[in-house]
Amino acid sequence: MSRLAAIYPADRVTLREVGLRDGLQLAKALPSTAAKTAWLERETGAGVRHYEVGSFLPAERFPQFADIAEMLAVGARLGVHTAGLTLNERGADAALQTGIGEMVCVVSATEEHSQANMRRPRAAAVDLVRHVAARRDAEAPGKIVNAGIAMAFGCSISGDVDPDQVIALAEACLEAGADIVGLADTVGYTGPRQVGALCARMERLCAGRPFIIHLHDTRGMGIANAAAALDNGARVIDASLGGLGGCPFAPGATGNVVFEDVVYLAETMGYPTGIDLDGLKQARAIAEEAMPGEQFHGALARAGAPANARWRAMA
Amino acid sequence: MSRLAAIYPADRVTLREVGLRDGLQLAKALPSTAAKTAWLERETGAGVRHYEVGSFLPAERFPQFADIAEMLAVGARLGVHTAGLTLNERGADAALQTGIGEMVCVVSATEEHSQANMRRPRAAAVDLVRHVAARRDAEAPGKIVNAGIAMAFGCSISGDVDPDQVIALAEACLEAGADIVGLADTVGYTGPRQVGALCARMERLCAGRPFIIHLHDTRGMGIANAAAALDNGARVIDASLGGLGGCPFAPGATGNVVFEDVVYLAETMGYPTGIDLDGLKQARAIAEEAMPGEQFHGALARAGAPANARWRAMA
Repeated sequence: MSRLAAIYPADRVTLREVGLRDGLQLAKALPSTAAKTAWLERETGAGVRHYEVGSFLPAERFPQFADIAEMLAVGARLGVHTAGLTLNERGADAALQTGIGEMVCVVSATEEHSQANMRRPRAAAVDLVRHVAARRDAEAPGKIVNAGIAMAFGCSISGDVDPDQVIALAEACLEAGADIVGLADTVGYTGPRQVGALCARMERLCAGRPFIIHLHDTRGMGIANAAAALDNGARVIDASLGGLGGCPFAPGATGNVVFEDVVYLAETMGYPTGIDLDGLKQARAIAEEAMPGEQFHGALARAGAPANARWRAMA
Repeated sequence: MSRLAAIYPADRVTLREVGLRDGLQLAKALPSTAAKTAWLERETGAGVRHYEVGSFLPAERFPQFADIAEMLAVGARLGVHTAGLTLNERGADAALQTGIGEMVCVVSATEEHSQANMRRPRAAAVDLVRHVAARRDAEAPGKIVNAGIAMAFGCSISGDVDPDQVIALAEACLEAGADIVGLADTVGYTGPRQVGALCARMERLCAGRPFIIHLHDTRGMGIANAAAALDNGARVIDASLGGLGGCPFAPGATGNVVFEDVVYLAETMGYPTGIDLDGLKQARAIAEEAMPGEQFHGALARAGAPANARWRAMA
């Protein structure tokens, strides 16, 4: 079995916790390393095994990720899969020196967002994927290279995004050496029909390899979009505890799709997650205490799962 | 064209605003008749044409519905379709004397909930549908008889609900003379797979006639469930402005699926609703001012629709 299939098995649903990365990007009060450690430990106790733990960025400008080495050490101790963003060559250099399991490159679906967000054209972002994959092959063959396509379902700068261009970009990323590609509804523009259609095309493109869907709940479509993704072949879904992760392009909006609610969704759809909702509640309590300025979202945290009914569907 | 097809055309999606009924059932601060009138007027200005305006219950015990005659007069003046709950013979008597467009009977999916909620067995609730339909035929042939099946996807008292029993009950209600049947996830237990499967069976049972889906967002599945319903033949969806309508069986939980967000969902799926989100925002402001003790939910109200992209899909 390939390393990719070992980390992201094609025959089951994997939920990636991105709250320790995406959820901290715009956080007002940053959690301490100790709090992040307790959060990661508790969420792992609940059954979560896949984490984005930070971003390889200059510590002076991004203090929320200054402790990424410590977080990787915690992840290694717990035996979970760790991922981190490598947004440029320097970030990739740093990541290659660590025990991280996955390096995440970001490619924008539109030229306009690519320039605004990365200050390079899309083609150069694909070149970075190629660079990271080549260095990984030479120096750290065990690591996974992930290419995340931002604004894949609509762009806050250029508006509509042509699905053909997204598929072409995904193909270019795979050709450049990415093991896995993710599609992100970065600003929460899209609905389930669009997600389902693009996932069906991704499934054909990836031909048995998994792909990732990354959703923001900005317009309340997050869970419906996750359901459409699962219905159309997606088997890896990003989410964050309490929906942490506000979007800089949509002030006041909620962030990522809520982890707890995605667990409930997947279970009702007959995809066992191996994740315990009570344990997530405890992890959430740790995160809430550590980030007093943040709004935590989600329905399961309020209502709990039904106590008297079989909400976990038969697979 | 039958009266039913004129009110609920089979070839388009109809959204029923139930906030003036379901949303007031547990409200702490009751809106004045003037505020309810302004709310109904403004929401109608936004394009909404179908309302549950109250319940025919004793005014001394249910003061929130004491002004149902005034609300019906407002509805008649605006030319919208009005519905009200007739939970017993006396309620049906009262409704038949009014100009209401639709009488809504409630049947529980489980014996336990039927006894707890209506103090009669399910068979007696179906008999009430028969009674109401017969009197309608004799006295007010223009009115629609709606039978809503509560707890159709799980019951807070008896837990799991057998879909076969729900379909049998729906069939019994149609046989008893109901023009239209609704399935309610009263306590928000279910997920999109279950909703899709039951809607597909309802579509076969109803054979071209519309049916209603009534969802609560207790566990965050409301929009995903609405998408699954639309994917499987449902063309009439209940919702409430701001998700008003707390559930007595799930304290702290959100209420009905959020009207504004269902509009967005339907539009992204290619079902034109004819409803203007800015107008809904103004109606919501009226309701919020009139009900200061209530929590209003929903993502569209926070984030707004994308300004730079075509979120209304081509039909």
